[in-house]
Amino acid sequence: MASRYDDVMSLSVRRGFLWPAVDLYGGFSGFYDYGHLGARLKRKWEDLWTAHFLGLGDNYYLIDTTTILPEVSLKASGHVDHFTDILVTCTKCKESFRGDHLIEAVTHEEAEGLTTAEVDAKIRDLKIRCPKCKGELGPSRPFNMMFPVGVGPLGQDRAYLRPETAQGVFLNFKREFEALRRRLPMGLAIVGRAYRNEISPRQGAYRMREFLQAELQIFFDPATFGTTLPVDSVKGESLRVARGAEKHAPTANERTVADLIRDGLPAFYVYHMVLVQRFYLDRLRVPRERFRFAELDERERAFYNKVHFDVQVAQDSLGGFKEVGGVHYRTDHDLSGHALASGKDLSVPVADRKVLPHVLELSFGVDRNVWALLDLGYEVAGDRSVLHLPPSLAPVVVGLFPLLSKQGMPERAEALYRDLRPGFDAFYDETGSIGKRYARMDEVGTPYCVTVDHTTLGDGTVTLRERDTMGQVRVPGTSLAAILRDLLDGRREFRALGSPVSRP
Amino acid sequence: MASRYDDVMSLSVRRGFLWPAVDLYGGFSGFYDYGHLGARLKRKWEDLWTAHFLGLGDNYYLIDTTTILPEVSLKASGHVDHFTDILVTCTKCKESFRGDHLIEAVTHEEAEGLTTAEVDAKIRDLKIRCPKCKGELGPSRPFNMMFPVGVGPLGQDRAYLRPETAQGVFLNFKREFEALRRRLPMGLAIVGRAYRNEISPRQGAYRMREFLQAELQIFFDPATFGTTLPVDSVKGESLRVARGAEKHAPTANERTVADLIRDGLPAFYVYHMVLVQRFYLDRLRVPRERFRFAELDERERAFYNKVHFDVQVAQDSLGGFKEVGGVHYRTDHDLSGHALASGKDLSVPVADRKVLPHVLELSFGVDRNVWALLDLGYEVAGDRSVLHLPPSLAPVVVGLFPLLSKQGMPERAEALYRDLRPGFDAFYDETGSIGKRYARMDEVGTPYCVTVDHTTLGDGTVTLRERDTMGQVRVPGTSLAAILRDLLDGRREFRALGSPVSRP
Repeated sequence: MASRYDDVMSLSVRRGFLWPAVDLYGGFSGFYDYGHLGARLKRKWEDLWTAHFLGLGDNYYLIDTTTILPEVSLKASGHVDHFTDILVTCTKCKESFRGDHLIEAVTHEEAEGLTTAEVDAKIRDLKIRCPKCKGELGPSRPFNMMFPVGVGPLGQDRAYLRPETAQGVFLNFKREFEALRRRLPMGLAIVGRAYRNEISPRQGAYRMREFLQAELQIFFDPATFGTTLPVDSVKGESLRVARGAEKHAPTANERTVADLIRDGLPAFYVYHMVLVQRFYLDRLRVPRERFRFAELDERERAFYNKVHFDVQVAQDSLGGFKEVGGVHYRTDHDLSGHALASGKDLSVPVADRKVLPHVLELSFGVDRNVWALLDLGYEVAGDRSVLHLPPSLAPVVVGLFPLLSKQGMPERAEALYRDLRPGFDAFYDETGSIGKRYARMDEVGTPYCVTVDHTTLGDGTVTLRERDTMGQVRVPGTSLAAILRDLLDGRREFRALGSPVSRP
Repeated sequence: MASRYDDVMSLSVRRGFLWPAVDLYGGFSGFYDYGHLGARLKRKWEDLWTAHFLGLGDNYYLIDTTTILPEVSLKASGHVDHFTDILVTCTKCKESFRGDHLIEAVTHEEAEGLTTAEVDAKIRDLKIRCPKCKGELGPSRPFNMMFPVGVGPLGQDRAYLRPETAQGVFLNFKREFEALRRRLPMGLAIVGRAYRNEISPRQGAYRMREFLQAELQIFFDPATFGTTLPVDSVKGESLRVARGAEKHAPTANERTVADLIRDGLPAFYVYHMVLVQRFYLDRLRVPRERFRFAELDERERAFYNKVHFDVQVAQDSLGGFKEVGGVHYRTDHDLSGHALASGKDLSVPVADRKVLPHVLELSFGVDRNVWALLDLGYEVAGDRSVLHLPPSLAPVVVGLFPLLSKQGMPERAEALYRDLRPGFDAFYDETGSIGKRYARMDEVGTPYCVTVDHTTLGDGTVTLRERDTMGQVRVPGTSLAAILRDLLDGRREFRALGSPVSRP
């Protein structure tokens, strides 16, 4: 398991996806940087996310807001008082730990949501001592995970780095409601950074102190939202769900939309679970058995949520199902908090009523999604290592090679490269054997490679090779752009392009 | 002038481009949020920037790195010691001011780069008192503009919010050099946030405490870079430049590339000035007379630069030429600083030598560029208000309207909308008179509008209207996507589409 993590991280570092930040100075715990391939993969994930989720409504938009927020706004949202973990410090070596993690390490059961008194009792009963020096642990205390920032020449204006992008949306709700001509539902999304001063970042790229979120807040009229959605059209669709004790097993149950609504979940909520599951199975191509929704109970869920399922993907590098997102019914928690603290009326006119909109939040960790793609995609079989990324997400879509560095092949391959580059992420390579060049492209997830060879000089056809099957066909060089576009958009399948040719 | 600023900001707030953040709680000085149209405009600017500047080399890539950096790395870069402004605090009301701004307000000349002793002397000689309460000003002192952040449960790891994106690139130089197979020149760019705790943010959206930068760092071998570039092909090109005292006047001189090189500027540097000027004049369509490079002398330029020209655009809302970017020859300042502090060798093999690469930085303020586009584009003529954005940057590219809300026109217009939406930023509107709908689109910069009318029901043609000329032509509805694509890509001109029709 640790070894699987190391394998994925090793590929990631070597080829330029993602790596621990500031290694030049010995690292910076909880911080990661994206290299040139990772930045491209991340951007493509963001574009796919935006197209899928903003496409759910014609009144859904991206906005972009500041990452530093004044204390008053985060007091109103509840984060100043409630956004805490439980901190335990060793009386001897002064090292700090998360109380729930200390307990989980002994019991192998989730301990999130315990009070300080409960953590102290468990530490006493289970005789837990400092994992580092075996010293006696001090009393536990709540620890706010937000990073404080002092603004102004004397640092006199108290502020924090935002712990979630969502608050930027709530603060701008009224202005956007006016600019968008007063319609509900209204969807406002932010893709951007958030910050949490994790007590002990662990599991490498999973629990970061600075991370990227993609969050869509849907503002709606709770009296009517469910009835305006085409819920009936998805009633028979099956969702992979783990509730209550089920989520401690590495499995999920298949439950229909109708079942889940009958069990008491709001129809609008289950409808959006369908759209989230489709994003993972159809767009990101996560295998069905590796996807599930896991429900959080009252103790576990975030303080602002009424209904809360994590979106989880099973990853071998992280030991099983891990959270990559969440579906959060925040009710009017945030708008009523801000209305109270600011003294401003945030309700809006709907027909002849005034309504304080409710909010459904679809929240995703961008880094966690990128890591999941690397984890699920990376395969080492014998001496071949391949990254099976969905073609629409691959940082390089097509590699272009001359078979030989002579006879005009490089010029022909470079001309194809220049033609394709404006529309595709293309990469030209003429160094090393053709086998080495294919191997380099396989390892970064490039779905297609094109080779210019002797036959090209005669009839203009090139060899087109598919990453996953290693199958090769000959196609006219002049049709390459159209064929690639069709393959990427799913309008054609590789095997329909013709009969395979023998490999060089 | 103030009124011009207010006019642009008023449009910006009303329609959803950009506005002061956290207005719900009375504002947050130095912070701005992007609404749904501004976020789209900004994204398009970033995409245009990326295509233009990463297209300059086949070894140029985007990366993405953390915004919190540990103190050791910013000590090495010189920011802990040198990234300061001069702070003056009133002895009576305790308000703080920038020393150079206090002096500039009296002398109307730039005072950046003065020492604390010089500021104290000027304040004494010019008898400057507190602008707020007329009290006596205290002695000046250097003030570091970085925001400190404490990382870890006790805040024990000293860090800062990054004051520029550039350091993220320098810290990752060696890893990317390996991942990109050891080639120079290598270009690494970051588009992301940076933070400066400005003493007194002023000029609204111009001097922000949290802002967006787009920066490209080009690493090169100083012995050969100039000779590898096609400098000869641009020798006759004319650049708009203000040097020395010239920059205090609101003008520029036209100087050829050959002239500037003869005057002693490095050839590689002037070559890149050409590429920056082309971006502004050709891509962003800034009028030539509103663009210039302004040279900073030894006192004024940033501590890491050997040659430093600001990129400036004349904006009526900001009182004239204002910085929107810079061309910075940073030499090996950063890599040698990090090599020394980390004890690691950052030089790289080039042929049979070891070279510590030099860096040319092309740096741009994204928010400042977005504001400049709003400033240059916004025109109020009589009762018509129009935002003349370049079509490729417009947040909405085409508006689709039924002339009447009956006779099947809405269905026809909506069908066109659904067809166009996957490929274009399209907007459907059926409320209000057709004139009002055009006016709403003019004001947000939408270059084209399409109306479905009685004739459409007969022959399938629609009215296509151009924002800037208000000219209208009839085109087949089925050709709309192709025509719009050609107009946006500059392959066709509107007036070549046919003879104008009478306006409704």
